[in-house]
Amino acid sequence: MPNPTACLLIIGNEVLSGRTRDANLQFLATRLGEIGIPMKEVRVIPDVPEVIINTVNEVRAKFDHVFTTGGIGPTHDDITSECIARAFGVPWEPQPEAWHALESYYARQNPPGDFNAARQRMATMPRGAILIENSVSIAPGYTIGNVHVMAGVPRIMQSMFEALAPRLQGGPPILSRSVHAHGVVEGAIAEGLSAIQQSYADLDLGSYPYYRQGGGGGVAVVAKGTDLAAIEAAVQEVFALMQKCGGTPAMGEPG
Amino acid sequence: MPNPTACLLIIGNEVLSGRTRDANLQFLATRLGEIGIPMKEVRVIPDVPEVIINTVNEVRAKFDHVFTTGGIGPTHDDITSECIARAFGVPWEPQPEAWHALESYYARQNPPGDFNAARQRMATMPRGAILIENSVSIAPGYTIGNVHVMAGVPRIMQSMFEALAPRLQGGPPILSRSVHAHGVVEGAIAEGLSAIQQSYADLDLGSYPYYRQGGGGGVAVVAKGTDLAAIEAAVQEVFALMQKCGGTPAMGEPG
Repeated sequence: MPNPTACLLIIGNEVLSGRTRDANLQFLATRLGEIGIPMKEVRVIPDVPEVIINTVNEVRAKFDHVFTTGGIGPTHDDITSECIARAFGVPWEPQPEAWHALESYYARQNPPGDFNAARQRMATMPRGAILIENSVSIAPGYTIGNVHVMAGVPRIMQSMFEALAPRLQGGPPILSRSVHAHGVVEGAIAEGLSAIQQSYADLDLGSYPYYRQGGGGGVAVVAKGTDLAAIEAAVQEVFALMQKCGGTPAMGEPG
Repeated sequence: MPNPTACLLIIGNEVLSGRTRDANLQFLATRLGEIGIPMKEVRVIPDVPEVIINTVNEVRAKFDHVFTTGGIGPTHDDITSECIARAFGVPWEPQPEAWHALESYYARQNPPGDFNAARQRMATMPRGAILIENSVSIAPGYTIGNVHVMAGVPRIMQSMFEALAPRLQGGPPILSRSVHAHGVVEGAIAEGLSAIQQSYADLDLGSYPYYRQGGGGGVAVVAKGTDLAAIEAAVQEVFALMQKCGGTPAMGEPG
């Protein structure tokens, strides 16, 4: 059976404008690979209702899981939840557990915080939302259908993902091994590498040049898949190829 | 007249697997904002021909400019160019200038390099490609229609973008100003901020909480648009709002 697939939607003008450098893609890509739900596409989209609604509906039909980050705070530009409700065609309404948790949280503050309309937005969700707790902030994320709605702040998102992960049914983990050789160039190994890729059709062989400050560099080759024996055999063949091309390969990524 | 729009396609399994952290999005988002071609969407897609072809055709119809990064090297996983040719329905064939440049480059090496089939791929492009030179590597990128095909290695991509930028017809630059206040929380300013956003409908007001190691944090608000006077007036209103909510705001992003 093939692995289930994942798509990430990064929702936020701040990433598209360059103000904020996303830090969630790499974390989620790595963790999803480990639990066997490889990420197949990522989209960064703006805080525009029609774009969010249309994109959510497109990708939730196309991938087994959709993860969203961003836009679930209390301010006017936090519109992810309303848009998810509209995408699913369900009411956007107080979620009782979240409402109770936030209301009592603000009441416990000294002096008591105001559970105002803005904060109430964080407890207002598409009908049917199942909460995703986190240990960093009081406001939860949630799952509706195959869409998992998480915060944009990396620390909070990571905590939410770890709370969510045990509920996700993954496939075999995506494993990888790599080999690199300093001074070897892609143009020299390309033909041999293509032949190795062809004889390991179930693996994904990637070739990545690297550069060093002050000059010099080499090539790293990464083999990925779910069959460790095949991965290790392929990497051994790449090792031998790099030697044949005059390099001194070493296992692993360049340090 | 509205600003022309941009979409970025990041092509590469290595970003989707978490192996490589993309460094091109933020650079391009910032530079495109400066030249008045704001980035409206980013997609990260795998090295899969059908996905690349369909995505290119979808986004080149939707946005004024499409920028691609990755997949134009000499190895078997570098399939961007063939896919762009198929997306445009034109032959994928030797580009005379690029072919000549690469051929003479390898001939000049000591000992002479082999202008082999793998390296010839880097000079094979969709018919009609207009080269984008760069000062780092010998292999050029190119423009076809409204699609600009660039390298994935950040240093090379940046050099290509700067060669390309003078050929792009931008709109008014996207300007921004920001204000932040330590100790202020989003829930306190949200209502006032929403009112300010409403009175400056042509601007984009974003609210971003920040956190400090060891605890504490605050909120930064960014106003973006093309009308500097409006941006500065809006930020002044946010400044006053933060003061009213008990904060001590300062102009700019938190240091």
